[in-house]
Amino acid sequence: MSASRLIATYRLRADAATIEERARAIAIEQSVEAPLAAIRDKNILADIVGETRHIADRGGGVFDIEIALAVATIGGDAGQLLNMLFGNTSLHDDVALIAVDLPEALVAAFDGPSHGLAGLRKRVKAARRPLTASALKPQGLSPDALAALAHNLALGGLDFLKDDHGLANQAFSPFEERVPACAAAVRAASRATGHPTRYVPSLTGDRLAIERQIALARGEGIDTFLIAPAIAGPSTLQALRRAHPDLAFLAHPTLTGSRIAPDVYARLFRLFGADASIFPNYGGRFGYSEQACRGIADSLRKPWFGLAAAAPVPAGGMSLKRIPEMLDFYGPDAMLLIGGALLAEPPNRLVAETRAFVRAVGALEHGAAHV
Amino acid sequence: MSASRLIATYRLRADAATIEERARAIAIEQSVEAPLAAIRDKNILADIVGETRHIADRGGGVFDIEIALAVATIGGDAGQLLNMLFGNTSLHDDVALIAVDLPEALVAAFDGPSHGLAGLRKRVKAARRPLTASALKPQGLSPDALAALAHNLALGGLDFLKDDHGLANQAFSPFEERVPACAAAVRAASRATGHPTRYVPSLTGDRLAIERQIALARGEGIDTFLIAPAIAGPSTLQALRRAHPDLAFLAHPTLTGSRIAPDVYARLFRLFGADASIFPNYGGRFGYSEQACRGIADSLRKPWFGLAAAAPVPAGGMSLKRIPEMLDFYGPDAMLLIGGALLAEPPNRLVAETRAFVRAVGALEHGAAHV
Repeated sequence: MSASRLIATYRLRADAATIEERARAIAIEQSVEAPLAAIRDKNILADIVGETRHIADRGGGVFDIEIALAVATIGGDAGQLLNMLFGNTSLHDDVALIAVDLPEALVAAFDGPSHGLAGLRKRVKAARRPLTASALKPQGLSPDALAALAHNLALGGLDFLKDDHGLANQAFSPFEERVPACAAAVRAASRATGHPTRYVPSLTGDRLAIERQIALARGEGIDTFLIAPAIAGPSTLQALRRAHPDLAFLAHPTLTGSRIAPDVYARLFRLFGADASIFPNYGGRFGYSEQACRGIADSLRKPWFGLAAAAPVPAGGMSLKRIPEMLDFYGPDAMLLIGGALLAEPPNRLVAETRAFVRAVGALEHGAAHV
Repeated sequence: MSASRLIATYRLRADAATIEERARAIAIEQSVEAPLAAIRDKNILADIVGETRHIADRGGGVFDIEIALAVATIGGDAGQLLNMLFGNTSLHDDVALIAVDLPEALVAAFDGPSHGLAGLRKRVKAARRPLTASALKPQGLSPDALAALAHNLALGGLDFLKDDHGLANQAFSPFEERVPACAAAVRAASRATGHPTRYVPSLTGDRLAIERQIALARGEGIDTFLIAPAIAGPSTLQALRRAHPDLAFLAHPTLTGSRIAPDVYARLFRLFGADASIFPNYGGRFGYSEQACRGIADSLRKPWFGLAAAAPVPAGGMSLKRIPEMLDFYGPDAMLLIGGALLAEPPNRLVAETRAFVRAVGALEHGAAHV
């Protein structure tokens, strides 16, 4: 692959007679977005206009087309990368973006995770075993009620305890009340267990609102945050990772359901700086296949021009019963997130159930369990 | 409709035996995102958990379900509104968000357009006729080449001349070089024509990057900007509109192709502060239907709890030949955008073709044409 081009692969419905023209139209749409007759600069025709590299007939009227797009059109911005990969073509409802292959020069223009899976392991002193996580929910609870829940979940010895992605800055639990309350509760529980459980608040709004949230949370000792890049904007994640290299970011997949493949999104989130990325596990309440989940985990963990590996975080209707299967499927380099199934336990069982979750995962750690 | 609930309508494939359960699952996913067994607070069950209001069998295994979501879960944030409307449910690929009905209390928590169509009319002294617009492209041109193009297009008497949405901050035309050059070219042309053509730079990156771009552009007298809310993040548009009530914002639809209906996106962009919203016209190079375009125009223009009307901006493969048809379809309260078709004209015909476009639209103005 040329250092000056990235390859985007689109899957679309077409007939053999028109597929070349469709491919050319996408190549133009995702680059110059103008009739070629309007382009009089030879360098632009040669170096900027997208090029069809390969067309594969998948049968049944489905084709995969590889388009080479100029790296020069990205300008090092995360949002612009998404814009060039799928912006206007997303408006054609018979086209999906199924793969991206980015040259080293482009990958190097981004940062990838500051910490990644290895850094998250250090935060919670877990050298080899899978990491554990749960979620504070439901929204509607008061800061005190969320803090009480956080205390019990942290007493169970979890590694990461994130806000539900539905927790924003609502009147029932404003960020500035919720975060100090939950942070204090988790600190108290950590003192009791000796385990450095991380409370992971959810960041919402525009970059300036998020910077105010981070400043407040830093005062509570928080060093790990949840963010939804498809809502906050990919450039916001990119900017936060650059501005705060000491912080870690867990990406949430909300609003990523579109005709961009989940493993493409996961790869981009890692590129932009996510240290971990949550996704719906197969066999949960979302319809993701085993193959899709393996693709997502590969996007996050496989070597990629020196970027740190990010932690895959399968979630979405997981339960304790499925832990052995998940450990088998993902191996130890993952963070398992069980939310609702823990919270559905009777309150007096919550700490014990959380401990059972932690033990089931910690059993893989060489040496003694640490909780 | 209760002041404390909004109604989201989802279209999905299901069978009659399971549709009620599917509806309940969406209502939970888009509110508390937890098993009801995990919710012990009666107020949350009553006031926060989503509720199925109506299920309509559309035939052929397609159902429309209306879910009432609590306004309290939004917290006045644009991103959180999208999160609650479709965030996790977007991950189910058989569900689409086809309509939203927001109560006055929620609409009032947002601002809507600062200027809207009426304010855009004032900017270019066009009281009644449709507005005209074109785009600077292709990307890859130098700032000087873009400025030369801008000069000719502005000499043609256009109202608004926007950066192509592919123009970001690339090395071939960095924002800080492109915007002063194009702004100066448009000012010079405006002095020649007497018409206050507005150059509309494209804002990209996170909120802080955008604030730097706005500060630079303000120095060039710019008061109207292009933004892609699905990439910059809806909260970014909301924050910009609040922080800069003197500026106008044109929303670009890039990356909005998903299972959220285009008229829903248009409505939300207006709510968050877009003064105008670009969309693919029917019969162009995108597959939008006349019905879809009418729905978008209605979302932008129809009375809505006192919010200013935004300008519909049909675009995407438009040409001079279609102007009478577009005027008939949209009426005078629209901004017609012709980009590539003008630029494909021979350079020595560009000013004359642009004038022909402007005259074709200006002919609707009562009294004399002003160019």
